[in-house]
Amino acid sequence: MSLTIGVDVGGTKVAAGVVDEHGQIIEKLQRDTPAARPDGTVVVIAGAVSELLSRHEVEAIGIGAAGFVDQTRSMVLFAPNLAWRDEPVKKLVEERLGRHVVVENDANAAAWAETKLGAARGQQDVIMITVGTGIGAGIVLDGRLYRGRWGSAGEPGHYRVVPDGRLCGCGNRGCWEQYASGNALVAEARDFARRSPGAAVRLLQLGGGSPEGIDGPAVTRAAKEGDSGALRCFDIVGSWLGTGLADLAAVLDPGCFVIGGGVSAAGSLLLAPARAAYEGGLTGRTHRAFAEIRLAQLGPDAGLIGAADLARSS
Amino acid sequence: MSLTIGVDVGGTKVAAGVVDEHGQIIEKLQRDTPAARPDGTVVVIAGAVSELLSRHEVEAIGIGAAGFVDQTRSMVLFAPNLAWRDEPVKKLVEERLGRHVVVENDANAAAWAETKLGAARGQQDVIMITVGTGIGAGIVLDGRLYRGRWGSAGEPGHYRVVPDGRLCGCGNRGCWEQYASGNALVAEARDFARRSPGAAVRLLQLGGGSPEGIDGPAVTRAAKEGDSGALRCFDIVGSWLGTGLADLAAVLDPGCFVIGGGVSAAGSLLLAPARAAYEGGLTGRTHRAFAEIRLAQLGPDAGLIGAADLARSS
Repeated sequence: MSLTIGVDVGGTKVAAGVVDEHGQIIEKLQRDTPAARPDGTVVVIAGAVSELLSRHEVEAIGIGAAGFVDQTRSMVLFAPNLAWRDEPVKKLVEERLGRHVVVENDANAAAWAETKLGAARGQQDVIMITVGTGIGAGIVLDGRLYRGRWGSAGEPGHYRVVPDGRLCGCGNRGCWEQYASGNALVAEARDFARRSPGAAVRLLQLGGGSPEGIDGPAVTRAAKEGDSGALRCFDIVGSWLGTGLADLAAVLDPGCFVIGGGVSAAGSLLLAPARAAYEGGLTGRTHRAFAEIRLAQLGPDAGLIGAADLARSS
Repeated sequence: MSLTIGVDVGGTKVAAGVVDEHGQIIEKLQRDTPAARPDGTVVVIAGAVSELLSRHEVEAIGIGAAGFVDQTRSMVLFAPNLAWRDEPVKKLVEERLGRHVVVENDANAAAWAETKLGAARGQQDVIMITVGTGIGAGIVLDGRLYRGRWGSAGEPGHYRVVPDGRLCGCGNRGCWEQYASGNALVAEARDFARRSPGAAVRLLQLGGGSPEGIDGPAVTRAAKEGDSGALRCFDIVGSWLGTGLADLAAVLDPGCFVIGGGVSAAGSLLLAPARAAYEGGLTGRTHRAFAEIRLAQLGPDAGLIGAADLARSS
């Protein structure tokens, strides 16, 4: 049995796990991320890995981090939800552990895991879209993770779908993630509840009486109960998702899309309108094959599993 | 000296040339394309190649065609400006010549030529955008031509930039090529001349007195003379071009963009506003490197040269 360690570094949690060659997690630890202190996060990562190393014989260690990773896969250039700015994460963790580590963007790691071991097994050209508060992505082309010239590929959440549209955290307007993410779903539901409280009784109830109390799980729950307002919110956001997938297919013609992230827990509530918009919106659709749109299989552990597998093959 | 033959099959012309390993064209023939008859085009291709074969010893033969080429690179699935629908071009040409041939999409062939022998020499990750009547593209990633799962990658002209925007020939609305192509430039100038004939005196003069007479070269000429209306048309179309490049960089983070096609003859009239919109619109721009935007170097022969070089390396 060949074991490696994968670490998933997010804005609030560090998860570290020992993973076998089939993607099975043998043991997993979770720690809070001290987001305000760059060195604190490194200490937490090294501590969790050391604990796992004390109990397991592993071949390699991989770290998936929620941020821009440079092309040498050593530095985290910028992490919107962490204190890292040009942080030499690879070197700092290696110094503490005395072992070689591999650093990768967390969405890339998740896409790798879903391609090698999850929903897109056997596919060579895969785009994984993570629909959470924002939109993350990882791209596998010709069977290899595609990182771009400077390591910043795979940010389709920031291609513009509406000129002068909604303001995005990245500073631009009209980015896809402002229309097709979990935040967009919640914004749509809250706006609906504000404008039409009489029609949004169930959503407001789940939100504790106020539009601001409505969150993603509340919209999903109401939609699963058949609430028409909540279903309409999923239609709107799912359609934007599918439109964007058709645009990505125009550029990259992948064999398969994998949809993961928190919002994908809504399953066909999100995927049915996405598939409809995708199939209706694909350019040249009478003369080409259609990529399948599949739900992710590995759940929130995809980043950890992918980081572990990338460490093995590096 | 290693020679190959490249053939560029467009809607109106078939160009065939003998090319050396440095991309130099030794001899070139041009024939009209009998667009209405699928077999006629094959006869013209085979005739031109046979003539070249009678005078040159060549190693291989490559055909670049303006259409969707399948992933086995044998069939042209659909060619908007030719009569080919699911046409087995490779087989038909091979039967007539008694020799092995390679078939490739023409924009892919041009992108390959500019990467190996032209403006992007030495780069590994290149997106070439051909700004002609529409927008064509070819994508080289990690030093290899990227074709997609089914051979249809590289159609960013049909990603949507305006919801419910201008109707496109592909059947969708709001495609990039409706805003950033030669047709868009001409439409902008004609619209301007219709609405403000007094301010469009020079454009109307070059158009023979009517807005409908204004064509792409007329807009370029007026802009080069300093005509403010024509310059504004280039600003608008160039900005759309640069916005799209920023969107493509969000997805693919290439090392270099190459801009070719007829409209690129306008040089900085097109590229200056494109660069400004690109640099202002790139997501995460304070934390990343910027891909250069370069003018194509090989001109209208890029497709022929690329087809010849791809035949060599196949």
